[in-house]
Amino acid sequence: MAKQKANLSRIQLADVGQEEDFEAARQKALKLGAVKVEIVDCKREFVEEMCFPAVQCNAIYENVYLLGTSLARPTICRAQIAVAQREGCFAVSHGCTGKGNDQIRFELGYYALQPSIKVIAPWRDPEFYKRFAGRNDLLDYAAQQGIPVSSTKAKPWSMDENLAHCSYEAGILEDPNTTPPEDMWKLTQDPKKAPDHPQDFTLYFEKGLPKKLVYDDNGSENTVTDPVDLFLACNAIARKNGVGRIDIVENRYIGLKSRGCYETPGLTCLRAAHMDLEGLVMDREVRALRDQFVTFNYAKILYNGMYFSPEREFLEDAIVSSQKRVNGAVRCRCYKGTFSVLGRWSDTEKLYDETESSMDTVVDFEPTDTSGFISVQAIRLKKYGKMKQEGGEDLVRPRRESYVKP
Amino acid sequence: MAKQKANLSRIQLADVGQEEDFEAARQKALKLGAVKVEIVDCKREFVEEMCFPAVQCNAIYENVYLLGTSLARPTICRAQIAVAQREGCFAVSHGCTGKGNDQIRFELGYYALQPSIKVIAPWRDPEFYKRFAGRNDLLDYAAQQGIPVSSTKAKPWSMDENLAHCSYEAGILEDPNTTPPEDMWKLTQDPKKAPDHPQDFTLYFEKGLPKKLVYDDNGSENTVTDPVDLFLACNAIARKNGVGRIDIVENRYIGLKSRGCYETPGLTCLRAAHMDLEGLVMDREVRALRDQFVTFNYAKILYNGMYFSPEREFLEDAIVSSQKRVNGAVRCRCYKGTFSVLGRWSDTEKLYDETESSMDTVVDFEPTDTSGFISVQAIRLKKYGKMKQEGGEDLVRPRRESYVKP
Amino acid sequence: MAKQKANLSRIQLADVGQEEDFEAARQKALKLGAVKVEIVDCKREFVEEMCFPAVQCNAIYENVYLLGTSLARPTICRAQIAVAQREGCFAVSHGCTGKGNDQIRFELGYYALQPSIKVIAPWRDPEFYKRFAGRNDLLDYAAQQGIPVSSTKAKPWSMDENLAHCSYEAGILEDPNTTPPEDMWKLTQDPKKAPDHPQDFTLYFEKGLPKKLVYDDNGSENTVTDPVDLFLACNAIARKNGVGRIDIVENRYIGLKSRGCYETPGLTCLRAAHMDLEGLVMDREVRALRDQFVTFNYAKILYNGMYFSPEREFLEDAIVSSQKRVNGAVRCRCYKGTFSVLGRWSDTEKLYDETESSMDTVVDFEPTDTSGFISVQAIRLKKYGKMKQEGGEDLVRPRRESYVKP
Amino acid sequence: MAKQKANLSRIQLADVGQEEDFEAARQKALKLGAVKVEIVDCKREFVEEMCFPAVQCNAIYENVYLLGTSLARPTICRAQIAVAQREGCFAVSHGCTGKGNDQIRFELGYYALQPSIKVIAPWRDPEFYKRFAGRNDLLDYAAQQGIPVSSTKAKPWSMDENLAHCSYEAGILEDPNTTPPEDMWKLTQDPKKAPDHPQDFTLYFEKGLPKKLVYDDNGSENTVTDPVDLFLACNAIARKNGVGRIDIVENRYIGLKSRGCYETPGLTCLRAAHMDLEGLVMDREVRALRDQFVTFNYAKILYNGMYFSPEREFLEDAIVSSQKRVNGAVRCRCYKGTFSVLGRWSDTEKLYDETESSMDTVVDFEPTDTSGFISVQAIRLKKYGKMKQEGGEDLVRPRRESYVKP
Repeated sequence: MAKQKANLSRIQLADVGQEEDFEAARQKALKLGAVKVEIVDCKREFVEEMCFPAVQCNAIYENVYLLGTSLARPTICRAQIAVAQREGCFAVSHGCTGKGNDQIRFELGYYALQPSIKVIAPWRDPEFYKRFAGRNDLLDYAAQQGIPVSSTKAKPWSMDENLAHCSYEAGILEDPNTTPPEDMWKLTQDPKKAPDHPQDFTLYFEKGLPKKLVYDDNGSENTVTDPVDLFLACNAIARKNGVGRIDIVENRYIGLKSRGCYETPGLTCLRAAHMDLEGLVMDREVRALRDQFVTFNYAKILYNGMYFSPEREFLEDAIVSSQKRVNGAVRCRCYKGTFSVLGRWSDTEKLYDETESSMDTVVDFEPTDTSGFISVQAIRLKKYGKMKQEGGEDLVRPRRESYVKP
Repeated sequence: MAKQKANLSRIQLADVGQEEDFEAARQKALKLGAVKVEIVDCKREFVEEMCFPAVQCNAIYENVYLLGTSLARPTICRAQIAVAQREGCFAVSHGCTGKGNDQIRFELGYYALQPSIKVIAPWRDPEFYKRFAGRNDLLDYAAQQGIPVSSTKAKPWSMDENLAHCSYEAGILEDPNTTPPEDMWKLTQDPKKAPDHPQDFTLYFEKGLPKKLVYDDNGSENTVTDPVDLFLACNAIARKNGVGRIDIVENRYIGLKSRGCYETPGLTCLRAAHMDLEGLVMDREVRALRDQFVTFNYAKILYNGMYFSPEREFLEDAIVSSQKRVNGAVRCRCYKGTFSVLGRWSDTEKLYDETESSMDTVVDFEPTDTSGFISVQAIRLKKYGKMKQEGGEDLVRPRRESYVKP
Repeated sequence: MAKQKANLSRIQLADVGQEEDFEAARQKALKLGAVKVEIVDCKREFVEEMCFPAVQCNAIYENVYLLGTSLARPTICRAQIAVAQREGCFAVSHGCTGKGNDQIRFELGYYALQPSIKVIAPWRDPEFYKRFAGRNDLLDYAAQQGIPVSSTKAKPWSMDENLAHCSYEAGILEDPNTTPPEDMWKLTQDPKKAPDHPQDFTLYFEKGLPKKLVYDDNGSENTVTDPVDLFLACNAIARKNGVGRIDIVENRYIGLKSRGCYETPGLTCLRAAHMDLEGLVMDREVRALRDQFVTFNYAKILYNGMYFSPEREFLEDAIVSSQKRVNGAVRCRCYKGTFSVLGRWSDTEKLYDETESSMDTVVDFEPTDTSGFISVQAIRLKKYGKMKQEGGEDLVRPRRESYVKP
Repeated sequence: MAKQKANLSRIQLADVGQEEDFEAARQKALKLGAVKVEIVDCKREFVEEMCFPAVQCNAIYENVYLLGTSLARPTICRAQIAVAQREGCFAVSHGCTGKGNDQIRFELGYYALQPSIKVIAPWRDPEFYKRFAGRNDLLDYAAQQGIPVSSTKAKPWSMDENLAHCSYEAGILEDPNTTPPEDMWKLTQDPKKAPDHPQDFTLYFEKGLPKKLVYDDNGSENTVTDPVDLFLACNAIARKNGVGRIDIVENRYIGLKSRGCYETPGLTCLRAAHMDLEGLVMDREVRALRDQFVTFNYAKILYNGMYFSPEREFLEDAIVSSQKRVNGAVRCRCYKGTFSVLGRWSDTEKLYDETESSMDTVVDFEPTDTSGFISVQAIRLKKYGKMKQEGGEDLVRPRRESYVKP
């Protein structure tokens, strides 16, 4: 954040759960000329406001990415603008490059939160980016100036960490066919080195929100209910058992493709358990509408930095409406990289009815009813079949003989 | 299939890859009075016509189920109606219960393929279902009559197997909180007993279809290209490494929820590898439209037994159109229940451009352009922010303080 | 509604605004043996609970039908079940045929409202429908028995009327190429005979709900605010000016196509005016999500009789969420069958900004920003263009030369 | 188009059907210093490639706008780039402002067609837009320089015309509550002055494409089949009868709202007739998928200038696939601003079956079947009803008492 002159700059460090030496960061900032350094603990807000709604709607981008970075950005924006407002800053700044998603996420956040704010983006300032052509130039400059940096030429990629995940991209990862080196992954155990015994635990949800985690801790049963503690405990289990690594080529908002590797240990488990519980307690049609419309778009909005927007409010109202009945618990297992479900139940919801769905009993409706159901569904399809017959097309023969033949 | 009288019944057995003693089945049918027993090898059609299009569009039902049973039904329908037409049968029959999805899938298939056909569904015939109240009654009857059955009281669930998967439901599984016994799973190795060394392999795709599998087989490199062989080899790798088990509560078409356990070894790998490749080679917008519209609906249509329908033709045309550029290869790993991607490349597609997406280089567009991009995207969001400010709503403060607090 | 025996039947007549001689209907029912006849005024509930939410989301089925009949059914179901519960009836009945939508709408409504209720549907009872093969048999029977009926052989179609609309189907209308006779239309003036001077009026909305109608009535300005009065006044204007007639072939829920003619005078104006106002005050992205998901599905759910369902509650929550800002007024005109908008404004909403969108002024963003916006959007499209060039496909030449050539 | 220096500029005028004195325009361009002026007749391509696919998918933006301008842009882009390539130009230019949609549509088109092209956009060049603050400054300059312009201070709005439509925006129209003056509308007759007798005509479609128009021309039956002639004849009928005027506030791609008035005479009729025919011949589910995904997105893509894109190719393949069965004819009427349908038929398609949908006959399925259909659909809804009862929520009472009460 800038106030009048650069040498009056205030530095805000958002603690969104990254494992970082904040005191060292503070000293470094002061040494570089900041007049004030503020470290804001955003962990609770990050978990409660960002991660939990993502769990509630099973947010996922392009079928794979759990949005760990995207989720942290709005929380950081809020903290940064709050400090800027308190300190009377006319501008804020960030260190994102000019090709990525994060610049967009930060700036759209700033502008929505404080429409009059100015943004200083050095990496898009020609004076700056013409001087430093890339990561290596910067590392050289830092070395010359005695500025300590965590990124080194020995770890040729960039990372972004928070309570929910750690991301790796750029550097050697830019070749999408390069397998990441085993020592790159920071948060999770290598599945091959994970414990030989599975770890089981139970997650309880109310209105789709994680409410309780019960797990065995060296023989004694542990119960966690505070959102941040629950998230951390879930992280610990998943990290130890190597759960939550992914590696994808994704489509950035600006239209470039990029390769990213991500570790999202606890969130992977919370999301999968939540989704499982929905099978037990959620109405089919509400779920289908939510899947097709809310989940898809909520993820897209987060990814593209549109969190502070009318459409996010609209979708979040829909999330809350969809989760009224998502109450129950899921018994889970982590083992050498795999998350699996062992069982689930709900004390309050009754949509699943063991007797009713049993093949062995006849209750409340007659099997003959299904004949009518099928006959009516068949009306349209019989017409289709007749139409094909009259047109000389034989549906009985496979349609696409040339389809998979070379 | 019935022809005039029951004692002239023709039995058709569709070989969709289930591990079954077909000769014993033939003898049993003849013994029970069938005048003709025909075993139709449908494996190739099943793989090429059903499984491969499902891979092409990443078909999945309710985020979890890979549709193994749903995919086999149309193939069996075709084989059954083909025999019925050849033999001049006026009716066909199936043994599905009156509460499940399969009765619908079979019958809608029959009616579309041969609109004039009659269907005999004993389990929906009161004379029949009033005599046999459930599975146990039937097992007793079979024992009395000396009819050999594979389902026993010792295996208290029902199974459906084919080349793509094996399903388990009913019986003790009807309690959604009962963890399946370890010896239930038939196809896949228990992840805990799977090999300690990962197995790596490479899958090649053309137009989204699996075209080649290369893997190491005890030191020698093996290459498979025939669709059925490729599918079987992929199955073998995944089965040995415990990949493809799921356990869900799903929503049946008739509106009941039911619990199902499924093993889908090879298809799990093929789908995940295909999806990964799409990240590298598919346009973002085509993918988003396909995900939201084709994948969702293709799965729903398959699940609900609407395969032979105008909408399936429509969606399948869209699948083909979407896959023109899905050419390339994915390096994969199976290990103790986990499938993961090690890398991917394409010799022909160029949407991913290492240089361009690199944070370290500036090509073809100026970083300053992104400033304009963001400014324009911000127009709408600044208005939103101003509107909130004028309305006295402080976006900087977390919105939902009551949201996760107890 | 039946109570024990048919001769103890209670008759409930729901007044949803149809122009009917309710007293005559009462006498007729008593004469036919009803022990009690109750006329329930449902007009307010029909307007407030059903028609106004439909206006709020611009509900429309298959792009043309405004759901006049579908909207009335839930209101009638509620009134009927309320009487049945008060009178302790074990069953309810309706007079719908076995091929239409209304039987489904009524019965799904009954079952959701009172899951234990029995339904008597004479037209699906073989004893009944085998005796009366169709409309003419029934008219003959009524004549024999001295039962007065409004439908006659002279008006060879069936009608359904309520405050929102009148529908016409069956009979001579079953030929989709038969133009309805001019004297069929009951509610609206023939556009050719409508007044030669347009009638103008102004509709005010709050949160998407119609709140006030101001119009000129023979020189004096009339203001209506009560929902039912507003709806009736809007109807009167539209009816007089021949607005709201449509003629379509639609797809019934059971899979048959049918031809229907509909008059929906006031609702046509309210919906169109509401939609116009949304252009002025609603965020683009919220509107797009609402259009694609809420409007489409709300209409489908209403049409298919799924009003009393979890998914309707879910969608209605989304409607309310989407309409927070839909406050303002629309100046409208009806003239010889056409509804048009003359102008609109909002005293509270500011998304439209005359100065800002003017081509003549430069405020808040620089035109050069748009260059960046376009450059970034072009990244993906340039790649597409290059790919086509490299593949030898010339985008500059029209793609589909054979497309429209004979 | 620029070649080296401005004084070597080539001018290309695309004739997309606007009523313009092309010869005067040529003289003016030469006088202003152009070295070459080329007038390219794009009418056929515009109709066949752009307007007819829009008819096939009923393209509409924000429920109202028929995309007349958006449709012309890709055709003009193609013509312009074709000339630029032939003449060896390094850059192209357009005269759009920096706040509208057209700059985006043109430039994204140029870049896709010729990724290496440079674009000169004077209205986004500070040197230019700082000198001319708006329309009036330019009119003054033109007057000073003796440059003849059609826009005058007497017609205080800007227009864009082509074969499909004429648009009006800016100037006095920027107040969304200003009713356009009657003499603004250029193409269509004022409905109040339109003929007192309706004009009827018949449109024939094959695969969703207009193939023949038959109409009465002063007593003799006229038949038109050539696409351009058909479009022009349809325009003539609609213009004479005042059909196709709209007035909306729409959301521009850059996030601003703007008010536009549009006349789209022929296209309004072609689209409405096509949509009507689809009711008769198109499968319900294909139509629903097409409506929700293809129509919505095709319109959005056109509006946002993404015509030359992978997603447009994808959607256009889906359009073609959806229209295989859209064969038949529609009898239409235009009268004083209203388009209406009098009837429709198809010689080849059989999905509509008069006998079958008749309420008076029983064929192919038993009315009792519908009981089963309803019973099965009711399973889920009965559960919903029971759940509400158990939760103490009375569905029989209107849900939203506070909903419309003040």
